[in-house]
Amino acid sequence: MNNFDFYNPVKILFGKGKISELNKQIPENAKILITYGGGSIKKNGVYDQVMSALRGFNVKEFGGIEPNPRYETLMKAVEIVRNDNIDFLLAVGGGSVLDGTKFIAAAAHYTGDDEWDILAKRARVDKAVSIGAVLTLAATGSEMNSGGVITKAATQEKLAFGSPLLFPKFSILDPETLYSLPKHQIANGVTDAFVHVIEQYVTYPVDSPVQDRFSEGILKTLIEEGPKVYNSETPDYNEYANMMWAATMALNGLIAAGVQSDWATHMIGHELTAFHGLDHAVTLAIVLPGLMKHLKEKRNVKLVQFAERVWDITDGDDNSKIDMAIAKTEEFFNSIDIKTRLGDHNIKQEDVDRIIQRFTDRRVPAIGMAGDVKTDDAKVILEDRL
Amino acid sequence: MNNFDFYNPVKILFGKGKISELNKQIPENAKILITYGGGSIKKNGVYDQVMSALRGFNVKEFGGIEPNPRYETLMKAVEIVRNDNIDFLLAVGGGSVLDGTKFIAAAAHYTGDDEWDILAKRARVDKAVSIGAVLTLAATGSEMNSGGVITKAATQEKLAFGSPLLFPKFSILDPETLYSLPKHQIANGVTDAFVHVIEQYVTYPVDSPVQDRFSEGILKTLIEEGPKVYNSETPDYNEYANMMWAATMALNGLIAAGVQSDWATHMIGHELTAFHGLDHAVTLAIVLPGLMKHLKEKRNVKLVQFAERVWDITDGDDNSKIDMAIAKTEEFFNSIDIKTRLGDHNIKQEDVDRIIQRFTDRRVPAIGMAGDVKTDDAKVILEDRL
Repeated sequence: MNNFDFYNPVKILFGKGKISELNKQIPENAKILITYGGGSIKKNGVYDQVMSALRGFNVKEFGGIEPNPRYETLMKAVEIVRNDNIDFLLAVGGGSVLDGTKFIAAAAHYTGDDEWDILAKRARVDKAVSIGAVLTLAATGSEMNSGGVITKAATQEKLAFGSPLLFPKFSILDPETLYSLPKHQIANGVTDAFVHVIEQYVTYPVDSPVQDRFSEGILKTLIEEGPKVYNSETPDYNEYANMMWAATMALNGLIAAGVQSDWATHMIGHELTAFHGLDHAVTLAIVLPGLMKHLKEKRNVKLVQFAERVWDITDGDDNSKIDMAIAKTEEFFNSIDIKTRLGDHNIKQEDVDRIIQRFTDRRVPAIGMAGDVKTDDAKVILEDRL
Repeated sequence: MNNFDFYNPVKILFGKGKISELNKQIPENAKILITYGGGSIKKNGVYDQVMSALRGFNVKEFGGIEPNPRYETLMKAVEIVRNDNIDFLLAVGGGSVLDGTKFIAAAAHYTGDDEWDILAKRARVDKAVSIGAVLTLAATGSEMNSGGVITKAATQEKLAFGSPLLFPKFSILDPETLYSLPKHQIANGVTDAFVHVIEQYVTYPVDSPVQDRFSEGILKTLIEEGPKVYNSETPDYNEYANMMWAATMALNGLIAAGVQSDWATHMIGHELTAFHGLDHAVTLAIVLPGLMKHLKEKRNVKLVQFAERVWDITDGDDNSKIDMAIAKTEEFFNSIDIKTRLGDHNIKQEDVDRIIQRFTDRRVPAIGMAGDVKTDDAKVILEDRL
């Protein structure tokens, strides 16, 4: 096992009716800015539950944070925070609203010249506005971690940032808030969480049985519960609850503690979103099978373990176990109507070339943290997915 | 899944050499009291590592905290904290030192008449001294939770307490500090951690696949790594590391989130320690097989799951699967030389009667939290273990 530090102070309030406990989580005299997305919270009752719980508090609101939240939009909220001396940000929404709110929290107190440096130069965050969250989508894990991903529309860049100051003070997870989600958002969320685990599990073995089994437990749960939720006509509380808790556990630092992480699938996927506007999860489902196939030999040990323990594949030699695991993974995405080929999304060789050119221009020694995906590898991986 | 709150702000620093980072975890101007046990840290080099990392700090020390730490001993440390205005307690040791230090932290600022009320009346802790820990034993999980168990020698009482104020600010876990442990302490630690998981897992099903798989992952790891560590002549770092991380994960609140917990095995075991001075872990290994056997029907679902998933028992009907799982559990304890019968420890029917009398006198509606162990059940369980 590798050495590690683990720290996660987010208080989780999980379960039906938990939004009503919101008022006990925020200082009474706080000046709150509620942040949200396209407005679904005003249709599904979540906004009303939040406002009811915050009766008597000083509350402003900022809506319109997009999926793949944009720097340009978020800077408008930063102005509000500065002008109105907001000291508590309450994100009500999914991962994009959470990520966007973390950026607002960091940028509002940023004293450098350009707030974009928080992403482009990973400028250090020395102070941040306190954040709380009411989660309405099970997907990114942002509710229990301190990072985010922001897109700059002007330059079609999508970059990550993070700071221990950006952990939410609390996150409220009520599975019932997910009942009104469009089905494709359920599918995206399950796919996103699944690939989060893979990025921390199908890497290189370091003799980490606890972490491996936690990862396998989350993956198996997503495989079982995801399609049940996706296909259900009447919501089953436990199915939603288990999917939601699995997604949170997928990216809160726990399964990454002491193991080799990767994130190459995400890095490549981000470019597909940046250039083509594809849903984040869809990009992951496109890239992952190609990456696994390309790294079949290098990541042999963990891929065989993934095949045997997650997909219960016992027959055949290692190579055929891996092939079957990759096929089953792609089938899993397809079973919840995620289209896993670039061609399905009208993305062609010249688009791949443009992405590869960007990686070449950036001259990073490797894409991701495992060291085994360089620009040439990304080319092979993407061309395999055409 | 049940509703739950989860909060665990303990920073974990895990791995070889991590004690050297101690100085970055404690405020520079802190008045530190180092607490420890029987003095093994002075023989195995841990004390020297700690003092070297704390060069330049204001440090006092308090040694002699016993296994099953005693109220009488700890109150002496409370006096030191009060007289010397200590504002940081650094526990260097195992679960007993950790638990004892939590009590010192709470009692030092207690304003009621009798500090024992923190245990006897579960009096609320409103203020506590900050705690950090250097763990030298993998067992109780106290390094990543906010509770403890203290014994009053005068009355032979052993009681639990806890408060969110008693989470350590940090805990340093260096598996190499375990290399010099006597073998029986390794066996005790593995047994203790194993039963911690069981208390949160073999209860009643609430449809919690993530939590169940995490529990199963910890149990399987303890079953694999425990005997390897116990029997090794030359220490293997990863075996120790995996055992240590499993023990921490066994009782940090994570696997308890959203499920039914029990703790009846602990409650009954505590009486065996209080009256007979048995090692804590040994009492658990005595009681658990009897408890499982007695609750075979009531806890049928989780016992079958335990048999199938943890012990890989696939043959036979449910009843025989459970019988085999109980037998394998007892064999596991015996394999690391834990003696699992009351008779092995010279405890007789009249001793059982005295324990039952105490439960009767206390008139608690049930022993543990699952509601299925009353005083009469404890009698059956203990008599089965004679």
